[in-house]
Amino acid sequence: MTKNERVNLINSVGGYKSANLIGTISGESVTNLAIFSSVVHIGANPPLLGFVVRPIAAVSRHTYENIGKIPFYTINHVHREFIEAAHRTSARFGADESEFAACGFTEQYVGDFAAPFVKESKIKIGLEFVEEIPIKINDTILIIGEIKHLLLPENLLLENGSVDLSAAGDVCISGLDTYYDAEKIATFPYAKPNKLI
Amino acid sequence: MTKNERVNLINSVGGYKSANLIGTISGESVTNLAIFSSVVHIGANPPLLGFVVRPIAAVSRHTYENIGKIPFYTINHVHREFIEAAHRTSARFGADESEFAACGFTEQYVGDFAAPFVKESKIKIGLEFVEEIPIKINDTILIIGEIKHLLLPENLLLENGSVDLSAAGDVCISGLDTYYDAEKIATFPYAKPNKLI
Repeated sequence: MTKNERVNLINSVGGYKSANLIGTISGESVTNLAIFSSVVHIGANPPLLGFVVRPIAAVSRHTYENIGKIPFYTINHVHREFIEAAHRTSARFGADESEFAACGFTEQYVGDFAAPFVKESKIKIGLEFVEEIPIKINDTILIIGEIKHLLLPENLLLENGSVDLSAAGDVCISGLDTYYDAEKIATFPYAKPNKLI
Repeated sequence: MTKNERVNLINSVGGYKSANLIGTISGESVTNLAIFSSVVHIGANPPLLGFVVRPIAAVSRHTYENIGKIPFYTINHVHREFIEAAHRTSARFGADESEFAACGFTEQYVGDFAAPFVKESKIKIGLEFVEEIPIKINDTILIIGEIKHLLLPENLLLENGSVDLSAAGDVCISGLDTYYDAEKIATFPYAKPNKLI
């Protein structure tokens, strides 16, 4: 395999991934927005999400550097209406140019929370940085944050507390470049050993 | 919110998650199979995948304990045909009972690789444990493994090296209980700052 084919293979072989835009702000007040497919649930209480960055890669370096200085950031779901613009945030924009303006997204601020939310996203999360965990084997870092704000329309909240991702028009990703619509097929009860579902 | 509603909310708010069955074997040669939605891409070279376990939770404890003794495990994609059986592996089976037999999956072995693959899965990955990274804030652990085997039908490999997840019938998950079909909507080229896609 070529190097590119190998990158595509390994990036797709773990299965579908979430699609999120992470918003940050630099010490010089330049906002940054970058698409990530590595957001992972860490725990519900306290409410924690993680994501993996590779600081030597240009695309995620600004996100990492900004959080190091101003430890607040936002995670905003990607909906099918704006997948092209969301994908464009992965281009190597300069440190003095905001992907919000360059890719057509609108900054939204909530109270005195420092980081910009994406107005166009229906599900927006404001997080405070908690911990960075180095993954030494390949110089990546797991960034963990605690959820401080959660903004979503009430009609996306299901009775059991879950968010209805398909009603929001959320997409998922495979590899580095492919976007998918998702359609609900089943919800199952809590599983018990001696009972068929 | 009730405690359950809060758990459902935070488990769903990061977006869609991959659906994988992780296969392990104990020091007493009892196989274990458990569904995980926390598999995350760590890097392509070396080829690394991570997943998050909470060892105090009964469901993921056997997986964690087994890898601690026999450091090989498998990650097997979940397809729509067997989502019910896959979900059932999350029940609290005893340490002497294999979820393979209890939930209707077939063990498959490859060469002298110690851990069992899921025969029914079209995309199967054999990994060697590399590192466990404690996430102290909530007693979870990121387990990192290096891909040693990759088994899939050649017709699922796309020209650019990616795996065609929708052709495989892969599903994704939101929260703890909801399964989704995914349908490809777009593949975009590598993004550049001065070019619209």
